[in-house]
Amino acid sequence: MHFTSELRLDDGTLEREFSLGEIPGTLWTPESEAPSPLILMAHNNGLPKAASRLVARARHTAAYGYAVATIDAAGCGDRPRTAADEEARAGLRRAMQAGAPADEVTEIFESFIGPMVEKAAPDWQTTLDALLELPEVGGPVGYSGWMALGIRLAVVEPRIAAAGFFAGGFVPRTQRDEAGRVGVPLLVLLQWDDEGNPRQRVLDLFDAFGTEEKTLHANTGGHLGTPWFEVEDGNRFFGRHLK
Amino acid sequence: MHFTSELRLDDGTLEREFSLGEIPGTLWTPESEAPSPLILMAHNNGLPKAASRLVARARHTAAYGYAVATIDAAGCGDRPRTAADEEARAGLRRAMQAGAPADEVTEIFESFIGPMVEKAAPDWQTTLDALLELPEVGGPVGYSGWMALGIRLAVVEPRIAAAGFFAGGFVPRTQRDEAGRVGVPLLVLLQWDDEGNPRQRVLDLFDAFGTEEKTLHANTGGHLGTPWFEVEDGNRFFGRHLK
Repeated sequence: MHFTSELRLDDGTLEREFSLGEIPGTLWTPESEAPSPLILMAHNNGLPKAASRLVARARHTAAYGYAVATIDAAGCGDRPRTAADEEARAGLRRAMQAGAPADEVTEIFESFIGPMVEKAAPDWQTTLDALLELPEVGGPVGYSGWMALGIRLAVVEPRIAAAGFFAGGFVPRTQRDEAGRVGVPLLVLLQWDDEGNPRQRVLDLFDAFGTEEKTLHANTGGHLGTPWFEVEDGNRFFGRHLK
Repeated sequence: MHFTSELRLDDGTLEREFSLGEIPGTLWTPESEAPSPLILMAHNNGLPKAASRLVARARHTAAYGYAVATIDAAGCGDRPRTAADEEARAGLRRAMQAGAPADEVTEIFESFIGPMVEKAAPDWQTTLDALLELPEVGGPVGYSGWMALGIRLAVVEPRIAAAGFFAGGFVPRTQRDEAGRVGVPLLVLLQWDDEGNPRQRVLDLFDAFGTEEKTLHANTGGHLGTPWFEVEDGNRFFGRHLK
């Protein structure tokens, strides 16, 4: 893991870009003598790690006392995409512009989000290995954000002790089938009026998660309308589980 | 309003029993120089004000900095019941012991919870008038607990600025019809596996509330399993709205 730049924020948080082989990432660490518990933070649908909403959430969470890391995993963010992925995305744009029926749009999402999760998960695990070797980063580990990837990581990665999922992204069948095997405490965020994500699908998924301790927070408003206090609620959720 | 007893708790909260005409009540006030914002707290289905879970919640909320009040309104708690109410309750016990179908149980609930809300709401308003004359109690006012009564009060009582509803009680048709007229910020608590309260009915009701700012917190577990952190979340919700 090589740090390629660093920035000290006003609140003392250290924000560093890093690269780990082909994986580019960002790590935020609070001013602290002791190692800080780590939260892996990913944007839904593999959106770039530099997206302003993700960065704002990461900075706030670091200021609260967590180390926070995000990456552009294989096939995500600014990383190269396969020709098949590019084709699927172009098809998605055409379908949405043409007002295609929901099940057709669903199939297009299925064709590239499923494989994207498959490829992304190992990069996150590789990153986790490297992060936990840093003296300023400790365990246990939390996960926050992209639900489809989070389901996979919660199932395959025993170091993840709690997860907060934002329900506003597409969850492919493979991950829906895995939901029952998620056993860590969960906080699921649902935007009640999210235009592109059927509410019932999220409620069914919440019901299916195998963990005994799960909480759903639903707020009125569309996809981008999550109220800021949910970031604070998320910090408090992790505070209960990352001890 | 006459105070009939007082108790100083270890954290400095003053817990006083009062009577206001025929209405018996309890008021908790924190140690504070300034008037404290008031939260009216009611147990679902008109259960007694002395119930230990209500008292624990009230004490915690007072320690957080709110004045908290509860009463046994007409037809509720230890107050006298009409012969019709007694008959309905006896019928309910028989029906539940006999494993009667859900819609039959629903009709029995309808026959006494609806009238109970009708009678209780004016007593809460009378109490609110008296509480707001005390120098240690200020506005704005929050409401917490019994959803059916809370819907009525939120609609008829403009002094209520925010409400937290526990969804685990029966909500009669009259209140379901009123839900669209509730315009204050809401926090609705749902126990996902509540045995006696169909989840879908609560989700439909949450959807129907007319307020623009509403949040649903759902947790796994049965009727009595609400996690303690929801009391803290409730305090923080009121902290955002009772300024």
